[in-house]
Amino acid sequence: MTSKLNIAIVGATGVVGSIMRELLAAEREKWGEIRLIASPRSAGKVLNVGDEEITVQAMSPEVFEGIDIAHFDLPDEVSAEWVPVAAEKGAIVIDKSAHFRMEDDVPLVAPEANPEDVRNRPRNIIANANCTTLTLIPSIAPLHREFGLASMSVASYQAASGGGKAGLEALYEQVNKTTPADGLGTKPGDVREALGEEANEAFGAPLAWNVVPKVGGWRDGGWTSEELKVRNESRKMLGHPTLKVASTCVRVPVAIGHAQAVHATFENDVTVEQARAVLEKAEGVTVVDDPGNNVYPTSIDSAGISGTQVGRLRQSVDFPNSLEFFTVGDNLIKGAAENSMQVAELLRKELTES
Amino acid sequence: MTSKLNIAIVGATGVVGSIMRELLAAEREKWGEIRLIASPRSAGKVLNVGDEEITVQAMSPEVFEGIDIAHFDLPDEVSAEWVPVAAEKGAIVIDKSAHFRMEDDVPLVAPEANPEDVRNRPRNIIANANCTTLTLIPSIAPLHREFGLASMSVASYQAASGGGKAGLEALYEQVNKTTPADGLGTKPGDVREALGEEANEAFGAPLAWNVVPKVGGWRDGGWTSEELKVRNESRKMLGHPTLKVASTCVRVPVAIGHAQAVHATFENDVTVEQARAVLEKAEGVTVVDDPGNNVYPTSIDSAGISGTQVGRLRQSVDFPNSLEFFTVGDNLIKGAAENSMQVAELLRKELTES
Ligand SMILES: NC(=O)c1ccc[n+]([C@@H]2O[C@H](COP(=O)([O-])OP(=O)(O)OC[C@H]3O[C@@H](n4cnc5c(N)ncnc54)[C@H](OP(=O)(O)O)[C@@H]3O)[C@@H](O)[C@H]2O)c1
Ligand SMILES: NC(=O)c1ccc[n+]([C@@H]2O[C@H](COP(=O)([O-])OP(=O)(O)OC[C@H]3O[C@@H](n4cnc5c(N)ncnc54)[C@H](OP(=O)(O)O)[C@@H]3O)[C@@H](O)[C@H]2O)c1
Repeated sequence: MTSKLNIAIVGATGVVGSIMRELLAAEREKWGEIRLIASPRSAGKVLNVGDEEITVQAMSPEVFEGIDIAHFDLPDEVSAEWVPVAAEKGAIVIDKSAHFRMEDDVPLVAPEANPEDVRNRPRNIIANANCTTLTLIPSIAPLHREFGLASMSVASYQAASGGGKAGLEALYEQVNKTTPADGLGTKPGDVREALGEEANEAFGAPLAWNVVPKVGGWRDGGWTSEELKVRNESRKMLGHPTLKVASTCVRVPVAIGHAQAVHATFENDVTVEQARAVLEKAEGVTVVDDPGNNVYPTSIDSAGISGTQVGRLRQSVDFPNSLEFFTVGDNLIKGAAENSMQVAELLRKELTES
Repeated sequence: MTSKLNIAIVGATGVVGSIMRELLAAEREKWGEIRLIASPRSAGKVLNVGDEEITVQAMSPEVFEGIDIAHFDLPDEVSAEWVPVAAEKGAIVIDKSAHFRMEDDVPLVAPEANPEDVRNRPRNIIANANCTTLTLIPSIAPLHREFGLASMSVASYQAASGGGKAGLEALYEQVNKTTPADGLGTKPGDVREALGEEANEAFGAPLAWNVVPKVGGWRDGGWTSEELKVRNESRKMLGHPTLKVASTCVRVPVAIGHAQAVHATFENDVTVEQARAVLEKAEGVTVVDDPGNNVYPTSIDSAGISGTQVGRLRQSVDFPNSLEFFTVGDNLIKGAAENSMQVAELLRKELTES
């Protein structure tokens, strides 16, 4: 087969959908038709993919006619309903929602960990992991391959845009309201009063000037859905069902860029020098680690950048076979859009170069 | 002895010194004369302790004449020079700098962990731990007493005011410059450009819209001084020289309130119910933990509040004898001023009620 594959971006108006359009524009010549899909609210809007102007179509079964690969960038419950419809119409769906990720007959793929799983897709559905796990995988997967990961304790520093367009706008609005241009800022103790009850809507508590140790919904035992995703999705992508994971997920007043502090213990001996050598060769990882010159990863420096950045690499003082490190990645790029573009590229090679 | 003890606040113009004045005002009747001391820059300024107006005096040996307890709230190198001077003049010094904390003949005291060590002060010096460790101790100490702490992995979310007055003002200024009142905000990738090189001064990197995984100075092996303090000062206050600690310290764009995500493993069996019962009875801890009603600790809710707040308590899924929890505390109150007021109260009882 030599003809180009036709692509749909479903949820093209969202924050992830916008990055999808940018990434597609950069490799436009690889693909056939590009169709943009969103809710009926957005139908008729004209959006760009590079120079190309494309009219957004409302979701319907017919809109998937002739599509080879459909990137789904929708809320969970909308994906749950429409992914099977698109798959039945013959599209291979790469879905970013949480709905299908842990199903046995749906592969969950990060090309840095398990690219081979793309070929095993009995339902025509491939799932993309959550943004926190995806920004951790490029560093933890090659370390696991080399040294055998036994356990990890992970604390996250997650950006507002992880909560979609609504989340990003809520943070900007909250900071605006509590940061008078002519003065300093609202006193910490008065932030709740200044913002009122509605500031709890986006994140559970005001996010301006705050950290909020709750991402996602509540699950049994006081866990959040995000914390369990970090554990379960890491295990699935690493093919390591007995991996021990402790995870705390926290929202911080950052626009874009998920960061994570990682304490990792391996089956085998590992030194910082060995780990650095592995990470320097790893796909999707840039080592940013030169304390003497004040060089380390930060959230703002990950925004708009491909892959992930890793630094603050150090040998655990009190734990054998263990490392500490800090990783950041753009939650909308490697945490979402870029990963599904990488999966699409694996499909393109399989389907057009065989 | 029945006469009241005379108190000096050395560094009375700083952010910690200001909270010291507030806390002293609330129990003014307990103490004798209150003397306020700062650099020659501040000499002659009039500051309040409650209704009382007190003129700030410049640092000198003579200024400690007749002082019983001197609270030192100064930069490390100034404390290093002046603490011995005050101690020699007969004052018992409670020092908040890092300089004396790890010396063998200086007790490092948090009343929730080791109040008895106050009595053993051969040099007339008692040290106060750093703010990160002090906001962790009220929860970890009683859990250690009950279940025997074996190891902990801690990631911090530290406020700008941990960097003093200069840090707090730097954050407010950076957020102001990147948050136009009429628009949204500076794009994450453009924050460095908008703020220029001088935004690196306070924290190493811009803090507005960012997280910065560097608190304190660089040490061997890529560690920061703050991360080693969390380990070494916890060990000293808990009297547990073999405690295993993994620590990553991170600055976040929060004005006041240090938070920590804690993964703790104990020698003995522990359930969430047992741990909650211990924490509910613990001094300096308020359990704020009711996920169903969206109740958990956040940084802004700790600002201006005594003690620490603990929540998100849960049983580790994959680790035996282990718990996860999240703790917050005002870094200027329990993290600094309140702890030294508690130590002063122990001294007051010892010296005036015997
Ligand atoms: N944000 C992240 O960091 C991130 C990272 C990884 C994965 N994800 C996942 O990616 C997905 C999209 O997230 P996002 O952050 O881009 O959200 P978002 O900004 O809120 O965008 C949601 C998109 O879904 C569309 N949509 C909503 N209801 C629809 C319906 N009934 N029919 C058709 N389209 C509908 C919206 O179209 P309208 O504009 O027409 O309403 C919009 O295009 C979610 O599953 C999320 O969990 C997000
Ligand atoms: N901020 C926290 O969260 C925190 C928590 C725990 C411990 N600490 C420790 O507490 C101490 C004070 O911190 P801070 O945050 O309050 O700092 P700060 O806001 O910068 O205040 C520094 C104080 O030191 C005084 N000072 C500076 N140089 C002096 C000199 N040569 N002689 C006399 N006084 C001098 C200043 O007086 P002028 O105004 O006259 O310059 C000011 O009162 C530090 O050791 C810090 O590590 C701070």
